Amino acid sequence: MKKEILEALKQNKGKFISGEELSIKIGVTRTAIWKHIKQMKEDGYDIDAVSRRGYRLIQEPDTLELNELQIDMKTRLIGSNLIYYPSIDSTNNEAKKEAAAGAPEGTVIIADEQTGGRGRLGRQWVSPKGTGIWMSIILKPELEPAEAAKITQLTAASVATALRNVTGCEAGIKWPNDIIINKKKVCGILTEMSAELNSVNHIIVGMGINVNVDPEEFPEEVRSIATSVKESVGHEIYRKEIVLEILRIFEDLYLDFIRRKSIDKSVGICRKYSVTLGNQVRIISKDKVVYAEAVDLTEDGELLIRNEAGEIEKIISGEVSVRGVSDYI
Amino acid sequence: MKKEILEALKQNKGKFISGEELSIKIGVTRTAIWKHIKQMKEDGYDIDAVSRRGYRLIQEPDTLELNELQIDMKTRLIGSNLIYYPSIDSTNNEAKKEAAAGAPEGTVIIADEQTGGRGRLGRQWVSPKGTGIWMSIILKPELEPAEAAKITQLTAASVATALRNVTGCEAGIKWPNDIIINKKKVCGILTEMSAELNSVNHIIVGMGINVNVDPEEFPEEVRSIATSVKESVGHEIYRKEIVLEILRIFEDLYLDFIRRKSIDKSVGICRKYSVTLGNQVRIISKDKVVYAEAVDLTEDGELLIRNEAGEIEKIISGEVSVRGVSDYI
Repeated sequence: MKKEILEALKQNKGKFISGEELSIKIGVTRTAIWKHIKQMKEDGYDIDAVSRRGYRLIQEPDTLELNELQIDMKTRLIGSNLIYYPSIDSTNNEAKKEAAAGAPEGTVIIADEQTGGRGRLGRQWVSPKGTGIWMSIILKPELEPAEAAKITQLTAASVATALRNVTGCEAGIKWPNDIIINKKKVCGILTEMSAELNSVNHIIVGMGINVNVDPEEFPEEVRSIATSVKESVGHEIYRKEIVLEILRIFEDLYLDFIRRKSIDKSVGICRKYSVTLGNQVRIISKDKVVYAEAVDLTEDGELLIRNEAGEIEKIISGEVSVRGVSDYI
Repeated sequence: MKKEILEALKQNKGKFISGEELSIKIGVTRTAIWKHIKQMKEDGYDIDAVSRRGYRLIQEPDTLELNELQIDMKTRLIGSNLIYYPSIDSTNNEAKKEAAAGAPEGTVIIADEQTGGRGRLGRQWVSPKGTGIWMSIILKPELEPAEAAKITQLTAASVATALRNVTGCEAGIKWPNDIIINKKKVCGILTEMSAELNSVNHIIVGMGINVNVDPEEFPEEVRSIATSVKESVGHEIYRKEIVLEILRIFEDLYLDFIRRKSIDKSVGICRKYSVTLGNQVRIISKDKVVYAEAVDLTEDGELLIRNEAGEIEKIISGEVSVRGVSDYI
């Protein structure tokens, strides 16, 4: 019922709606309305309650709870099954369990806090409460395992575009899986899969976005290379707006990918916002480090480099680590 | 306590042990011993009970229950965590859930019946009650996703060797993942993985072995290409003996693989028992069928073929399907 009250208040945002009107609309007593609104105020909703005029929603809190997301969500596949946790170990872990239990494609797991957030290769990802977007999406595309990296590119394109659209920041993409603002990492993408030898069962794509994280919340060892949207734009941003924009763009790009079997649209975005292309990079593989120039992305999102002998080589995401020569980017 | 009674009876198999001796050894009353033995007889154990002489184990039933397996198991990693189900949808599915929940490497899931057994690409695998080995192993090797096929080869080597050792049958290996007797399939291997783009989180290797399955239990559409160990050797075989032998050989080959980072021992076995090598095969990929001669396996278990132009090509497991030209093999 909270959802219906919230929906009615939002439709009239900034204007008063009487307790009686709410009561008739939703079909419960005025006392029940009053109790729910009291609870919502405790949850952080700024609501005016004036006798003989009724209730007026001034401002929602920065929450990612289901009601808030569902009321404004416009997608039909991505987020059609939405699961929210105030706190969880890792949204990717939870998504794996959900997928193993049969959760449908498009399921989104979102948490207000991760207590065991992970980056690539099991590295820790700090995910403090209430200040970031810690989210995973379950997908079931027809892909071979080696193609899973396409989903990373599609996600990077979605996140960078959404951050730019909502906040006006200059989000860039460090190939293959980091989103960058001012040469610092604002978001990491972790793509995992369940697969047979030649076909993907499902893909989990997780993202951790530092939205309103303060610099001092980052562990000391990453402080010089981590940033948040807030640090870049100078004020707090509603996480919900970013989540909804990511899901909207992601759905567009994903459905286009499924329909046309091509991620060229995503790659176009990754090229445009790339902070890697045109720069000197170090290609770090298991047994050696090679210096090269990042030249372009292929239509499948693989990196083309010019090696020291002047030849063009293709780098497949996941095989190597790519770093700038002088700093993090 | 059933395990202790069973262990004592087995140590004295064929000989009498008195109720009093059992009672002292295990530390329960003679009435409790009598009750447990009554239950064991109902479970299919052939036990003589003669007054003034005691109890004598004549024969165990063909069961894969934990007590039976654990008492005789000699491995230290593979099967160190053993989970048995009288009936389950699919041991691979269950293994995935266990792995997602943190089950350790070497966990083995075994079921007396699968109600939703799967082969590759979600194909049905008939797994009737009490007559086959439906088993999955959880592994956590340091591998890239493209190397997961090595585990298939290692498993094929283990199963073929175990079937030969225990039953004397002439089990062959149809590259990459089928065990064959008399040109018919007796076992399929399904390797699945959870992975990041460049590193495997865990591998689930499942096997379905038709041990005592009668030909009429196979669905009509596979009857001409499916067989069982029983059909080949002419009598029923204790499944437990095969399971224990598989786990023993698997552990040897797997620990050797981990230690030396090479599956050459497994590949040697796969070569020796191969029914593919030396034969004409059809290489079936997404968009075409090519005829070739299967020539050899590489050290990594990939298939080398001689194509129609006379050139040697490498076929990576999972990319294509390999069939004999004239029949199933």
